[in-house]
Amino acid sequence: MYAVIMAGGRGARFWPRSREKYPKHLLDIISAETILRETVNRITPIVSPDRVFIITGANHAAEVRKQLPELPWKNFLVEPSGKNTAPCIGLAAIHLRKKDREGIMMVLPSDHFIADEKEFIRVLAIAGKAAKRGENLITVGISPGGPETGYGYLERGEKKFTIDGEDIHHVRSVREKPDKNEADMLIRQGGFFWNGGIFIGKVSTFLNAIARWLPDLYRHLVNMEVAPGNKEEETVVNRAYASIIPVSFDYGVMEKADNILMVRGDFGWSDVGSWDALYQVLSKDEHGNSLAGGGVFLNRNSRNSLVHSPHKLVAMVGVEDLIVVDTKDALLICRRSASQEVKNIVELLEQKNLKEYL
Amino acid sequence: MYAVIMAGGRGARFWPRSREKYPKHLLDIISAETILRETVNRITPIVSPDRVFIITGANHAAEVRKQLPELPWKNFLVEPSGKNTAPCIGLAAIHLRKKDREGIMMVLPSDHFIADEKEFIRVLAIAGKAAKRGENLITVGISPGGPETGYGYLERGEKKFTIDGEDIHHVRSVREKPDKNEADMLIRQGGFFWNGGIFIGKVSTFLNAIARWLPDLYRHLVNMEVAPGNKEEETVVNRAYASIIPVSFDYGVMEKADNILMVRGDFGWSDVGSWDALYQVLSKDEHGNSLAGGGVFLNRNSRNSLVHSPHKLVAMVGVEDLIVVDTKDALLICRRSASQEVKNIVELLEQKNLKEYL
Repeated sequence: MYAVIMAGGRGARFWPRSREKYPKHLLDIISAETILRETVNRITPIVSPDRVFIITGANHAAEVRKQLPELPWKNFLVEPSGKNTAPCIGLAAIHLRKKDREGIMMVLPSDHFIADEKEFIRVLAIAGKAAKRGENLITVGISPGGPETGYGYLERGEKKFTIDGEDIHHVRSVREKPDKNEADMLIRQGGFFWNGGIFIGKVSTFLNAIARWLPDLYRHLVNMEVAPGNKEEETVVNRAYASIIPVSFDYGVMEKADNILMVRGDFGWSDVGSWDALYQVLSKDEHGNSLAGGGVFLNRNSRNSLVHSPHKLVAMVGVEDLIVVDTKDALLICRRSASQEVKNIVELLEQKNLKEYL
Repeated sequence: MYAVIMAGGRGARFWPRSREKYPKHLLDIISAETILRETVNRITPIVSPDRVFIITGANHAAEVRKQLPELPWKNFLVEPSGKNTAPCIGLAAIHLRKKDREGIMMVLPSDHFIADEKEFIRVLAIAGKAAKRGENLITVGISPGGPETGYGYLERGEKKFTIDGEDIHHVRSVREKPDKNEADMLIRQGGFFWNGGIFIGKVSTFLNAIARWLPDLYRHLVNMEVAPGNKEEETVVNRAYASIIPVSFDYGVMEKADNILMVRGDFGWSDVGSWDALYQVLSKDEHGNSLAGGGVFLNRNSRNSLVHSPHKLVAMVGVEDLIVVDTKDALLICRRSASQEVKNIVELLEQKNLKEYL
């Protein structure tokens, strides 16, 4: 079994903590460790470090390597530029095909929250066994906590088989993020699960699916595979990435393929897609306030707010439902329900060419 | 004419900008100058610097002197401890009696906002003329902008005389800060003015009033007056202040005396008693936001808030009616309507012995 951790993306929504050089997975916003570090720690009980691969971008590779010194240098696969998840997964698969074509590859996001790590590992192990049974891609359907509009949904189809007491079902359909009405309907109807962004399958199964549904991408991958492992390989990879069209694995493969199975995951999951989503998973005091990142916090009549201030005393008087994030050079004050709009602040910074804050 | 500027007080309500060492009048929160500096600038068109006296506390004297280098060293009268306004005014009067018993003394707070400085000066000049006419203390009744509960009120009585077109009235009563109902009633009834905390009179008139209504204080003042002007004087002053009972000039003299006159003041006045009061007098952008203290400000859908951040970029998303004050070591987030409670944060700091933030 191999773990492939996708550590790309920019994470503008965690500005001002996230910056171009410090995307979300490199931040210690959930715990004292970075999210990436926690992700690797979580998987190493079932995958040894020499089988953990990190796919990351050229601009973050140095920092990512620094945070994971126990991984072999060659296990960091560096994309010249971000092309969404399908090319990222393809790059990992084509790399692994050279050494273990029938190996099981578990593709994991680097920046999610998981409350119950034991249950997570148990479910992954079951998914791994399911993947071994044949030419299927296994995904984890998260038991939905409510009609979230921020997640994609998996529709559970007929049962295929049972492993270690867990039923493995066919995935009848993959839905993009729904609007509020549709989300309400999916939850009322039942049989829909959040798409956790985790994919498990044989290396060959991943590549067969890409070859079928994304043949252009597959051609680029094969070009990279046959390049000799030296400086010329870099040139080949750069050239391929210049032509690769960005596409997500969900949209490019999952929505089309009919060999997708799912195992139910119920381990306290969040993709932590915003400061408010982070607030939801953090522990709170009796007034619903979460003091993250250390620092002194004084409260008078303030409730249901997230304060992330590693260095400074913060006093709140009579406020509620706020996100307060203090960094050395920038301060964010945001209504919790508007925390998706933090990315618009990053756009404003770009428009105003305030590069030092990006 | 002499100006006596009362530069005492702690200003806990402007925490985290105000600190034990930096009370409100030493802060540049209204403009780029400190409030004290502005107060002195405002008066010097009619009172030359050698006739401007500053009464301040021992703990702030050095900083106060530094900010007003043009004033003679001997014009800073240092109180060993704060005993409210009556002893402060008494100390100034007893000091001035030695040099000009019949001089006119204008007692001014150091930490108020005045929009129209020309009109302010015009009104003060009229008050000075009124004071010269006899044994009266003249105060300025501010045309009330509404039923404020944070101010004392002056009840205007019969007209005494007219100077330069302005009627000077007897003050029938002096009211402490009213509750909301009473304030509504006073405004509906009419003939009530905000007590602007400005007093003008002959030096001898001030001292006669203190002798009559606060005889204990007067005895202490006379002890200080007869002390020789050397190190022994300091000992005498310290001893006197150890015994002086704190009392405001309003309560100790104004409410009892029957020789109080008032001139109407209509020059855009605020005592700037809280961050919200500061917000009211500052200029705002088209969304009602006031960006004070410099710094970069990015706004998305935020309204009616005061941001005081001299050094740091502040981004606000979807919030309203907030006070945000960022300093090097402490950050305040406060609902505007709760800004009176900032002093409770200072109490919390004291309780928790977090001295570095006081």
